[in-house]
Amino acid sequence: MKRVMINEMDNLIGGKIQIKGWVYRVRKLKTITFIIMRDRTGFVQCIAENKAIDMSTIKLESVISIVGEVKEDKNTLNPYEIVIEEFEIINSVTEELPIEINKATLDINLDTMLDNRVLSLRHEKINSIFKIQNLIVQGFREFLSKEGFTEIFTPKIVAEGAEGGTEVFELKYFENKAYLAQSPQFYKQMMVGAGFERVFEVAHVYRAEEHNTSRHLNEYISMDCEMGFIEDEKDIMDLEENLIIFIINKISQEGEKYLEILNLDLPKLNAKIPRIKFSEALEILSTEYNKSDLDGDLDPDAEKLICKYSKEKFGCDFIFLTHYPRKKRPMYTMPLGETETHSFDLLFRGVEITTGGQRIHDYNMLIENIKYKGLTPEVYHNYTSVFKYGMPPHGGLAIGLERITAQLLGLENVREASLFPRDRTRLAP
Amino acid sequence: MKRVMINEMDNLIGGKIQIKGWVYRVRKLKTITFIIMRDRTGFVQCIAENKAIDMSTIKLESVISIVGEVKEDKNTLNPYEIVIEEFEIINSVTEELPIEINKATLDINLDTMLDNRVLSLRHEKINSIFKIQNLIVQGFREFLSKEGFTEIFTPKIVAEGAEGGTEVFELKYFENKAYLAQSPQFYKQMMVGAGFERVFEVAHVYRAEEHNTSRHLNEYISMDCEMGFIEDEKDIMDLEENLIIFIINKISQEGEKYLEILNLDLPKLNAKIPRIKFSEALEILSTEYNKSDLDGDLDPDAEKLICKYSKEKFGCDFIFLTHYPRKKRPMYTMPLGETETHSFDLLFRGVEITTGGQRIHDYNMLIENIKYKGLTPEVYHNYTSVFKYGMPPHGGLAIGLERITAQLLGLENVREASLFPRDRTRLAP
Repeated sequence: MKRVMINEMDNLIGGKIQIKGWVYRVRKLKTITFIIMRDRTGFVQCIAENKAIDMSTIKLESVISIVGEVKEDKNTLNPYEIVIEEFEIINSVTEELPIEINKATLDINLDTMLDNRVLSLRHEKINSIFKIQNLIVQGFREFLSKEGFTEIFTPKIVAEGAEGGTEVFELKYFENKAYLAQSPQFYKQMMVGAGFERVFEVAHVYRAEEHNTSRHLNEYISMDCEMGFIEDEKDIMDLEENLIIFIINKISQEGEKYLEILNLDLPKLNAKIPRIKFSEALEILSTEYNKSDLDGDLDPDAEKLICKYSKEKFGCDFIFLTHYPRKKRPMYTMPLGETETHSFDLLFRGVEITTGGQRIHDYNMLIENIKYKGLTPEVYHNYTSVFKYGMPPHGGLAIGLERITAQLLGLENVREASLFPRDRTRLAP
Repeated sequence: MKRVMINEMDNLIGGKIQIKGWVYRVRKLKTITFIIMRDRTGFVQCIAENKAIDMSTIKLESVISIVGEVKEDKNTLNPYEIVIEEFEIINSVTEELPIEINKATLDINLDTMLDNRVLSLRHEKINSIFKIQNLIVQGFREFLSKEGFTEIFTPKIVAEGAEGGTEVFELKYFENKAYLAQSPQFYKQMMVGAGFERVFEVAHVYRAEEHNTSRHLNEYISMDCEMGFIEDEKDIMDLEENLIIFIINKISQEGEKYLEILNLDLPKLNAKIPRIKFSEALEILSTEYNKSDLDGDLDPDAEKLICKYSKEKFGCDFIFLTHYPRKKRPMYTMPLGETETHSFDLLFRGVEITTGGQRIHDYNMLIENIKYKGLTPEVYHNYTSVFKYGMPPHGGLAIGLERITAQLLGLENVREASLFPRDRTRLAP
C-alpha cells in the first residue's frame, strides 16, 4: 500500500489509506483512543476503538504506520480524521524523551534546545524557522540567477588569511599551514575578473572570534555576491533593495503556512530603504540619543538606536549606512576622499545584516591601500596579481543567512537560526 | 548611457549603443582596425577607422567601453557588428599576459591553467564548464525541492571524524581538537529523524587523502540527499535515476549554447539504468576481461571495464552496482544477510560518481554494527543517541559535483571541473 501524506487527503474521503509518521499525542478515553500523527506535511487525528485495537502502549514520538478510513472532521489540526483499522510500529522510542515536544510552545532554554536538536527540530515552530530560511536562500539564488549571476563554489581552505584579520582558524594541510576562509571575498572578486562579471556563493565561512554573543557564530552561512561594471556602491545598494523585496515576496507567497505557525508579520518594503551617511548616523546618535562614545563603528546599542530612528523617522525596518570611514574598512574597499569609502552596511531591526561596497579595481591603488592598512602586499600576491590583467570596476555584498533569518523571525539568538550551531564552546551535536 | 550586453543587440540596428567588456582580439589593417570585444554574454566585432580613432595601443584583455552604431553583419561571432564612434579604456592590462587566451583552444598544461586561473577562466571553453556545472547543481536542487526535500546546511567543523575514516583534516578549535567534515552523513540522517524526512545539502567536504590522482580532490562539493520512509535502497536508486534524467534534460534545454561551445553530446537516458550485483560484476570482470585481482572493491581499471560492459551489453553510459560487501561499507550501512549490504554505487563513463544505500535505523543494530566494524560506539554518541527516539527507515546518496561534471563533459582531470582546486600540493590561487 502506498503511503499517503497527511496533507494529501482531499478527495480521499471514505477511502482506505496508509499514513506513516511520528506519534505526537495519545489520549485514551474509556472506549476510544485518539492518536495524533505527524509527518513532514502536518498533523492528523486518528481514532481507534479500544476493544478492537490496543494502542495504549505506544510511546510518544515512535515511528508508526496506520491504515484506516478517511473521514471528514472539524478539528483544528486537519479537515479530516482517520478511523484506524490496523497499525504497525515501525521503530519504537526506546528511552524516555529528554524533552517534551508535544506542547504548543517548546518551553526549554537554548542549550537544552540545541543539546536535543533532533527532537526540538520536530516541533513545528522550530521546523518552520528552517522552512523560511530555505525560502530566503532560494530567493537569494533565484533573484540573482534572474539578474545574470552565476553560482560559484570557492575554496574554504586558503593559504592566506583574508582581509588582514587575525581571527582565523588554522589547520595543518599536509606539510603546510592553511586557514579556513573568513569569506569568499578574494575569490568572488577574482571571478568577476575571470569574465563571469556577476557571481554569487552561498557557503560556510569561519570566524575564530573569541566572544560568545547572541549575534555571532563561529561557523555560518554567508550569502555573497559580486558584480562587475558598476558605477559605484549605489548600484549594489539598489541591487540589495530589489533582492530583499524579492525574498520578502517569496516568503509571503510560499511560506504562508510557516508564517502562520510562527504568528509572524513580514516587514513591508515598498519604498526605497533610507540611506544616511555613517557620519550623519554618529551625529543623530549624539544629538537624538545622547550617545557619543563611538569610535569609528557602531556598537550593538547604536545599531538598535539607528534602526529605531529609521522606523520612527522613515517608517522602515531597514536602513543603509554609507560612507564608512576608511580606517575601519578592509583594504580592498574603494576609498572616497581621504577618510571615507564607497561602502555601506544594511541594518535591519537593530542588527547589521549586510556589509558591502565598491572595491578597488586598479592594481596600483590596491597595492597602496594594502600598505595604507599596514599590511604587506606580497602576502596577497595570488589575489593582487589578477588586477594587472583587466579588472572591471566592481562591488558586492554579503548577507549572513542566520542573522537575516533571526531578525526576520524575531529570534532572540542567532543560534536558533542554525541547525547545528558552532560557537565558542559548542562543537556538538 | 546605459550599457547594452553583447547578446542584446536584436532590434538595435542603426542605433547608437555602449558596450563594455574585455578586448579579445585586435587586428589593424591599412585603413581600419577590427576589435573583437567580449562580455559575459558573448563576442562582437567592432570596427574603427584608423584616421579617426587610434586603438592600436590597446592591450589585449584590457577592460574598455565602446560607443558606436549597430550594423547587421555575417561574421561567425555575432549577427551584428559595431562601428566605433568613441572608446574609453576603463582598466588597462599593465603587464604581459602570462598565457594566450584568444585562441580557439587553450593549449596549456593543467598546472599552467590552474596557476593562471582567472585568465584561463575567461576562455569560453573553460567558462562553459562552469556554466554547465551550474545547471547540474540547479537541477539537483530543483528536482529534490519538487520531491519535497528541504535544503539544509550542516556543520563542517565536527567533533568526531565521520565514518571511522582516518583521512581527516584536524584543526584547533579554541581549546579543543576538531575535524573538517568528510561528509554530511550523520547530520543528514539526523535531519531525517528531526522530522524533515527528506533533506539535501550541496556543500564543501574534505578528505585528507595523501594520493594525488586525476579523480581526487581534497576539498570538493558534495551533493547529498537523504530520504525517510523508504522500503530499501531501490527507492534511492529510483530517485537517482529520475534525478539524473532531470539534470540531463535541464542541461539540454538551458545549456545548448555551452554544449555547442564544448562540442558535446549528452548521454541518452530513457530506459532504466542497469543494476547488477557487485558479486556479479566481479564475475563479469573475471570471465569477460580476465581481471581477478580485486579485493572487495573495484579499482579504477575495473570501473572502466564495467562501464564498457554496460555500454556494450545495455547501451547505457551508467550502471548501478548493488549489494556491496559488508566489510567494505561504513558502519551505518544496512546489512543484507551476513556478508552483503543494502547499498549501491553509480558508475558513469568509467568512474564512480555516487555512493548510496539504505542506512540502519534501529539503535541496537547500529551499536552492534559499529562494534562489528571494530569501532567504539561511545565515540559516536551524538549521532547514535538520536536513534533511540523514533528514527524512520531511510537512505540516501552523495554525488561528487566535480566528478559528475568531469565525466559528463569528458574532462581528463577532475581539477578542470573545480574553479580553484585543492589537492595534495595545491593551496593557491
